[in-house]
Amino acid sequence: MFKDIFENVRKNRPLIHNVTNYVTVNDCANILLACGASPIMADEKEEVAEITSICAGLVVNIGTLNSRTIESMRIAGKRANELNRPVVLDPVGAGASKLRTETATSLLEEIKFAVIRGNISEIKTLALGVGTTKGVDADVADKVTEENLDETISFAKAFAEKTGAVVAITGAVDVVADSKKAYCIRNGSPMTSSVTGTGCQLSAMTAAFVAANTDRPLEATAAAVSAMGNASEIARDRLAEGDGNATYRNYIIDAIYNMTPEDLEKGAKYEVR
Amino acid sequence: MFKDIFENVRKNRPLIHNVTNYVTVNDCANILLACGASPIMADEKEEVAEITSICAGLVVNIGTLNSRTIESMRIAGKRANELNRPVVLDPVGAGASKLRTETATSLLEEIKFAVIRGNISEIKTLALGVGTTKGVDADVADKVTEENLDETISFAKAFAEKTGAVVAITGAVDVVADSKKAYCIRNGSPMTSSVTGTGCQLSAMTAAFVAANTDRPLEATAAAVSAMGNASEIARDRLAEGDGNATYRNYIIDAIYNMTPEDLEKGAKYEVR
Amino acid sequence: MFKDIFENVRKNRPLIHNVTNYVTVNDCANILLACGASPIMADEKEEVAEITSICAGLVVNIGTLNSRTIESMRIAGKRANELNRPVVLDPVGAGASKLRTETATSLLEEIKFAVIRGNISEIKTLALGVGTTKGVDADVADKVTEENLDETISFAKAFAEKTGAVVAITGAVDVVADSKKAYCIRNGSPMTSSVTGTGCQLSAMTAAFVAANTDRPLEATAAAVSAMGNASEIARDRLAEGDGNATYRNYIIDAIYNMTPEDLEKGAKYEVR
Repeated sequence: MFKDIFENVRKNRPLIHNVTNYVTVNDCANILLACGASPIMADEKEEVAEITSICAGLVVNIGTLNSRTIESMRIAGKRANELNRPVVLDPVGAGASKLRTETATSLLEEIKFAVIRGNISEIKTLALGVGTTKGVDADVADKVTEENLDETISFAKAFAEKTGAVVAITGAVDVVADSKKAYCIRNGSPMTSSVTGTGCQLSAMTAAFVAANTDRPLEATAAAVSAMGNASEIARDRLAEGDGNATYRNYIIDAIYNMTPEDLEKGAKYEVR
Repeated sequence: MFKDIFENVRKNRPLIHNVTNYVTVNDCANILLACGASPIMADEKEEVAEITSICAGLVVNIGTLNSRTIESMRIAGKRANELNRPVVLDPVGAGASKLRTETATSLLEEIKFAVIRGNISEIKTLALGVGTTKGVDADVADKVTEENLDETISFAKAFAEKTGAVVAITGAVDVVADSKKAYCIRNGSPMTSSVTGTGCQLSAMTAAFVAANTDRPLEATAAAVSAMGNASEIARDRLAEGDGNATYRNYIIDAIYNMTPEDLEKGAKYEVR
Repeated sequence: MFKDIFENVRKNRPLIHNVTNYVTVNDCANILLACGASPIMADEKEEVAEITSICAGLVVNIGTLNSRTIESMRIAGKRANELNRPVVLDPVGAGASKLRTETATSLLEEIKFAVIRGNISEIKTLALGVGTTKGVDADVADKVTEENLDETISFAKAFAEKTGAVVAITGAVDVVADSKKAYCIRNGSPMTSSVTGTGCQLSAMTAAFVAANTDRPLEATAAAVSAMGNASEIARDRLAEGDGNATYRNYIIDAIYNMTPEDLEKGAKYEVR
């Protein structure tokens, strides 16, 4: 099934509008191109509604947010809702500051998101309204493990029920859930946490996968998460002596570029609960 | 002739002021260093005039523009005109929003550009005042092919006549024209469209080539376009199994870094019409 | 001793707040991850004090500064001072515009910096209050050489005395000094100047080294400078035919990723004066 989903991305080449941070934006653009989609970045309030209108999907990423871009996120999100285009929220660092927590919370109230993707600390912050996020990484105390997986799945389903969004919690095990069904995805490599922006890249790619498969956002999100995890494995296996996180970063994008829908079908490791 | 032009870049090491977008800015800086020039990025209105004053050339790139940076583009452009330093316009996404189209159009009215470089959709938008650009890539309907090459050359010459700028339309075939003469350049690789910002990089490098060769902007622009296309070919030929668009991106910049003026002279594929 | 210092970075994994430019920010994040630290980028005045509070150290980098971010630098710096967390100043392009010179100068008056790191032209600008910086690179007239090394050491010690900061002047020979003692570091490769942002990366990494070793900022800074220089050497030695500045950029970060504390101890080349 992931095969069909990925084929639709490569066939439809969805144009994705990114209102995003300036740290990882270049990698987001290149991974969108790698998966067969097309990126456009725009964050000025005078143009975002129009840019959203010509796009198949939107990503709202709150890393390096500021008062100017927060307004643009709101305008773009509302326009996407009016046009029934999927919107992905990446609540980078929610919990690390009041501004991030409140921005993410108020965006959740005003905009209908197709997908919310973050680490467990960020998603818990959104669900509880307060957070203990340390920086942009998940708290150790929060980490998703095999031991607390059942609990995480229940939490994800409940938050999906509440928000109407597919909830994607990424970590050692990735949980992608709507209110009824959850994909537990076991692709990936621990080294991924040594590259900045792999989460942002995944959120961008998720928008492309969902925009090309609007009838099945849960499966499309799970496919994107699997693709990213599988690309991390391929990248890790290519590393030679002397290679580190910079080469690894390039190899992840390269792996998405070379991944066929069949490769994804074969490489995906998941169970449905 | 491209040999002499490139030698002047490496010899003069022109400092180039970039008022540009935050998506591709790092690659723009690194390709400027690769070709022997030196980059400085500054977009605050309080300092841009002064920064332009210490530079040999200026690039105005409207990707991720906002009201603050639009004013800076205007100030920097006017200062460069006063000092008779070449200014390159990259109208990223002109046609994709009113803000971009109007900004590009008004910049064209207020500033004398030495070179305007974009894809065919962006340049048509500037010439006609309205556009149908989808995102930041050229429309399929617009693509420059061998079939419509004559027409594109006439269009480029007419727009060069109207603006007094060298017009560089990049695509499968690149057309670089002033009002009387056009270079049709056949360097390049289709894979280049899978890397974000190769157009931005070319615009930055064009500013360096023209700044180091102010007496022949047409030839300097053609040389920069050839260099970028030739670097793409070299990069493509270096790709091994598993390499994708991220590695390709690095290899393009690497190829510029290693290219000698003699290499460019030999590698350039063009005809003059 | 550099061994212990680097071990503390890898063990404590300090979270570093970066108020920095949008040109080199991605590389700054990845080199922080490479050395074992963790990055967070935030430049909005409403959140910077809070972000600084959860971090072990702060970098203030004035490349691509604007009126909005200058205020954020001030707020974050003051908060870090209140909390006694080390702050590193990178005065990118001080001397190239009045705005940069005045901003750096006024930050120096209002904030106590643990470390000031720049090229010789930038540091001279800070010390003298005016500058002749051409762009973001050191003036040829200013370059630190074996001939003027004694003079540079005296200058660095005097400026350290005046500011209470460790002063790191990087170039062909790196000088890292407090008021009494100077490390002259001879690691590095001339090719480093062909990669944008290696100075910014070093400033970010310095914040991590000092944050993990608050009792010895001079030695921690010298260790960071040695690590960056040693990584440049390792990267240069890995270059194969066809590789250029883009691959070199990746290899520098890779080398930091793979460097053990023992490697740094062995690879560091310095004398104390």
